Amino acid sequence: MSTGLVIYGDSISGNCLKVKWVADHLGLSYEWRETSVLNGETRTPEFLALNPDGRVPVVVLPGGRVLAESNAIILFLGGNSELAPKDPFQRAKMMQWLFWEQYSHEPYIAVRRFHLRYLGKTEDELDPKLIERGNKALALMENQLGQSRFIAGDLPTLADVALVAYTRLAHEGGFDLTPYRAVIRWIKLTEGALGIDAVIDAVRE
Amino acid sequence: MSTGLVIYGDSISGNCLKVKWVADHLGLSYEWRETSVLNGETRTPEFLALNPDGRVPVVVLPGGRVLAESNAIILFLGGNSELAPKDPFQRAKMMQWLFWEQYSHEPYIAVRRFHLRYLGKTEDELDPKLIERGNKALALMENQLGQSRFIAGDLPTLADVALVAYTRLAHEGGFDLTPYRAVIRWIKLTEGALGIDAVIDAVRE
Repeated sequence: MSTGLVIYGDSISGNCLKVKWVADHLGLSYEWRETSVLNGETRTPEFLALNPDGRVPVVVLPGGRVLAESNAIILFLGGNSELAPKDPFQRAKMMQWLFWEQYSHEPYIAVRRFHLRYLGKTEDELDPKLIERGNKALALMENQLGQSRFIAGDLPTLADVALVAYTRLAHEGGFDLTPYRAVIRWIKLTEGALGIDAVIDAVRE
Repeated sequence: MSTGLVIYGDSISGNCLKVKWVADHLGLSYEWRETSVLNGETRTPEFLALNPDGRVPVVVLPGGRVLAESNAIILFLGGNSELAPKDPFQRAKMMQWLFWEQYSHEPYIAVRRFHLRYLGKTEDELDPKLIERGNKALALMENQLGQSRFIAGDLPTLADVALVAYTRLAHEGGFDLTPYRAVIRWIKLTEGALGIDAVIDAVRE
């Protein structure tokens, strides 16, 4: 039995990596329990007892309380850190982008990557709205990142953590980042700020 | 020129009504600017200058700063009120449900209602995953509301505001709430707590 923080996550999932990056950035100690979505490990009775929604990431806190939803978890872990503005309006802008990420970005960019790379589908089999709305999301980020260094202002926040998770892997979902110059600049800046390996430089250049 | 809080919203949108309910509950004074999605009023150059994402609700604060995303707005307005727990873990559970609402509930229950009621589509024309995933969301709420009076604990929070917005109108999206007894009880409790008219009692009974 662990008495520390436990993170249930799938390493191929950007939503799960958000939690790992924030925990690592804050120097938290934790146990990572690899939980494969593709192998059905989020659908077992044991896992569903932990999270009835059948999704990762999930964290179990010391004492046993359980929290789900990637962005709620990173806010819980990092909401008082330098990755979260103290100013109420700046904090609200961070929240705006965190909700936008889950509603207008992840359902297209992450989902398209999952279908192509992990479910073995071809582009022809996919709903065309995935590429359209994913590109709309990238264009909106390009517009914002032409005005500020990071997505919610000039300093990195949890909203950058959330958005970089799948934006940096957008090429795996068949998105061409080339036209989004400000987005590419921001990916590098954010990877640097978080200490994430820039594994896809060759792809992006 | 207004110098107070301005809310751009469409009265048929649950996402917009969330903002109105919280502002009313807190006794804030504001100007409501009715902005029709169906009439293209969120796609005009003037509106896109306000919110490049082309969505309502949007609020303009005294001084001119702009905030989008319904759940970010209600957190900004009500995050220090009695609708937001002070305890960090209770607050995190509220956040969990706020993110879950936008990712796992609204895209099915609100979207199906919009297609059927406002775009004039028939049930046969709709993606079957809308009813499947909407019912999955309602079942998850039923499970939670069998364990706690409100969605994130025994007191109403902003997560109840967010979730009641479209759950109370689920029948307009072709969902039958009858099997979800705890959800029906909670809708009434939440409407009462927020002072929202229980307009659909006859439908639900």
